[in-house]
Amino acid sequence: MKKVDLKQKVVSENENLARANRARFASGETLVLNLVSSPGSGKTSLIEETAKRLRGAYSMLVLTGDLVTENDARRIRSHGVEAIQITTGDACHLDARMVGEHLAQAKAKRYDLVVIENVGNLVCPATFDLGEDLKVLLVSVAEGDDKPLKYPPMVRASGVLVVSKTDLVPYTDSDPERLAGNALKINPKLVVFKLSSKTKEGLDQWIGWLESQLATKKQSRAKR
Amino acid sequence: MKKVDLKQKVVSENENLARANRARFASGETLVLNLVSSPGSGKTSLIEETAKRLRGAYSMLVLTGDLVTENDARRIRSHGVEAIQITTGDACHLDARMVGEHLAQAKAKRYDLVVIENVGNLVCPATFDLGEDLKVLLVSVAEGDDKPLKYPPMVRASGVLVVSKTDLVPYTDSDPERLAGNALKINPKLVVFKLSSKTKEGLDQWIGWLESQLATKKQSRAKR
Repeated sequence: MKKVDLKQKVVSENENLARANRARFASGETLVLNLVSSPGSGKTSLIEETAKRLRGAYSMLVLTGDLVTENDARRIRSHGVEAIQITTGDACHLDARMVGEHLAQAKAKRYDLVVIENVGNLVCPATFDLGEDLKVLLVSVAEGDDKPLKYPPMVRASGVLVVSKTDLVPYTDSDPERLAGNALKINPKLVVFKLSSKTKEGLDQWIGWLESQLATKKQSRAKR
Repeated sequence: MKKVDLKQKVVSENENLARANRARFASGETLVLNLVSSPGSGKTSLIEETAKRLRGAYSMLVLTGDLVTENDARRIRSHGVEAIQITTGDACHLDARMVGEHLAQAKAKRYDLVVIENVGNLVCPATFDLGEDLKVLLVSVAEGDDKPLKYPPMVRASGVLVVSKTDLVPYTDSDPERLAGNALKINPKLVVFKLSSKTKEGLDQWIGWLESQLATKKQSRAKR
């Protein structure tokens, strides 16, 4: 019982800090995505492809979470996009405080797009709001089509599902339609993309959707 | 600071219960493995292959952890091996209490081999001793060779590394030697296997090692 109370307290403190992050992002009408997945589902690769396509046209900041190493931030910076590494030590997820504190290192006051890459973990990040507009859940076809059924809290918490590494479909038992269908059973509101950062298959649809979301944010800026 | 103290308290309570599990297993000279990995690295498939090869020759029990569903226990039972499903709800790892309590459902008093399949999570299960002899860490080649460097606590906590899904090597950027090398940088004592439950490549080595471990346990039984 005590453990549950403490968890509630941690989650509710996090919600206050997430609200502060959200207010900060809203003042710049920034689109904020929180990318969540198992380790190795292709979050960093998708951010790299997104950076290549959108840099120049949009101002973009990436915050990338890992237990250790600066590798992911370095990969993203190599595409000319600003990236801040958050190393969590032994923490299994990002929280709103870590994001808020690291935002102090950002070079600009506002961005069109902020992408937060969470620690690879299909369970714990579901509970922690970072102040994002949407959680984007990646599941690679190599993980097995049953994964959405086995990790429902993350599926419920997400607004978008990216079925990733579709280039591997011919070499696995995966059927991306079945994988997506399993996720939609848990959360029928999911927007679904199927793509491969390697072959670029499906990337146009992802970028098209992102640009429509960015346009909506821009309109609300113009109205103010 | 308070959060750290509570985590210490939870971990130390778990250690007491793990000790009780270990004493129980030791009295039967049972080999106990705790399989840990990201979701979708092939833990259940490896247990199925192991069950097919060892059933009949050894008494075997599988405890399998998931947030929800009985799917994994059902898959394992279909090979004629006893399996108990532990559903954790929203808990991101098994703990010694869950294992101890579910052991009460076991049909036999003792087993040659107990395999515990943890929740798919490359972070949190590292901290929780279940009373096992060894943690067996699976990393699939589809996850990327850098994963051991990015999730070092689990690599440090494990005694065995299984590089899984080697059938996918030709279709990924993975070099299993490099993946294993990255893990050995963190923990040079790891025993390493490279295998595919699909093509059966490398399974003989895994089974051979398991049988040698089982023989050692049997010898200590004979001596008593």
